[in-house]
Amino acid sequence: MSKTELNSGSVRGPVDHDVRVQIVAAATEHFSLYGYEKTTVSDLAKAIGFSKAYIYKFFESKQAIGESICANCLSQIEADVRAAVSEAEHPPEQLRRMFKSIVEASLRLFSQDRKLYEIATSAATERWQAALAYEGRIRELLQDILQAGRQSGDFERKTPLDETVMAIYLVLRPYINPLLLQHGFDYIDEAPAQLSSLVLRSLSP
Amino acid sequence: MSKTELNSGSVRGPVDHDVRVQIVAAATEHFSLYGYEKTTVSDLAKAIGFSKAYIYKFFESKQAIGESICANCLSQIEADVRAAVSEAEHPPEQLRRMFKSIVEASLRLFSQDRKLYEIATSAATERWQAALAYEGRIRELLQDILQAGRQSGDFERKTPLDETVMAIYLVLRPYINPLLLQHGFDYIDEAPAQLSSLVLRSLSP
Repeated sequence: MSKTELNSGSVRGPVDHDVRVQIVAAATEHFSLYGYEKTTVSDLAKAIGFSKAYIYKFFESKQAIGESICANCLSQIEADVRAAVSEAEHPPEQLRRMFKSIVEASLRLFSQDRKLYEIATSAATERWQAALAYEGRIRELLQDILQAGRQSGDFERKTPLDETVMAIYLVLRPYINPLLLQHGFDYIDEAPAQLSSLVLRSLSP
Repeated sequence: MSKTELNSGSVRGPVDHDVRVQIVAAATEHFSLYGYEKTTVSDLAKAIGFSKAYIYKFFESKQAIGESICANCLSQIEADVRAAVSEAEHPPEQLRRMFKSIVEASLRLFSQDRKLYEIATSAATERWQAALAYEGRIRELLQDILQAGRQSGDFERKTPLDETVMAIYLVLRPYINPLLLQHGFDYIDEAPAQLSSLVLRSLSP
């Protein structure tokens, strides 16, 4: 599909989707080189070779493009975490792997691509939908592991489940949220093991 | 003691101490009005009515003055926390009070005096001695409570004490360190109770 075709104006559903994907891919590359905060939609349009007006047909703002990029990054982290968790059979080990893999995956994003990390920081600061939805999905995964552990008899059942989920989420949050993660490097090597051990002690029946 | 006397150059031990206290008091007031980062030693000297050279006789840098102010603030937080802890008799309740009071005292500093909080932020970012010493004293207090709880039979004794201290310190850290605290306001009301409950569950014998 050439840019001329795209610019012809005859856009329909599936084509819309392709153009959006194309814009997000180009924007990801551009932001990862020049940073998110400093780039305007005009800069982006020039770099991709689209008109600014054309980009605005698909995304209402720079933030909307950033949200898509952010959602992709966070989905990748989530997929890594789910893969690590699913490798373990027993809920206690699943919880350990969740702590370990979420810190590793978040750190990978931070160290491999600082410019994209900047987008995650904006997402966290301005509470973008993509970031909030991700936090919700992480809490759901946590809840699933806790429920499985209660059923298997590995975890205590006295504490209300939502209270346990929330407390453990609070323990994990400094290593998920990019605003907090960037101040936690002193303890990053030992924190996942030490915190998951503490949490597992708190869950013993 | 007049400023003329102070400027006469005949400073000895106890007088040195008085002048230092006087400079720190004046600097605290000045920084709390104009901010730490933006103020230079020259600004400060002018505001206090001392020469810059005279201030440098007592403090080798602006940071050295900031360290003294920071140490005072952190000592105040520590005193509040120790007072709250000492009101409780049993180690589990002492631990709850430690969590509650440390968050409250840190928040008070943050909300009452944003300009002084800026000094605490610099201290945490640049790892000033005053901040590191404070963190060490907080870990000691935690260890004392844990040891008392192990002796009273309230807390389990299987986990190595230093591991327990470190893990609980990591749970508490986002609410102590000003760089992290400023990103934790969403959960600040519930966090102390939820986290101290989780920690107490993890400590049950």
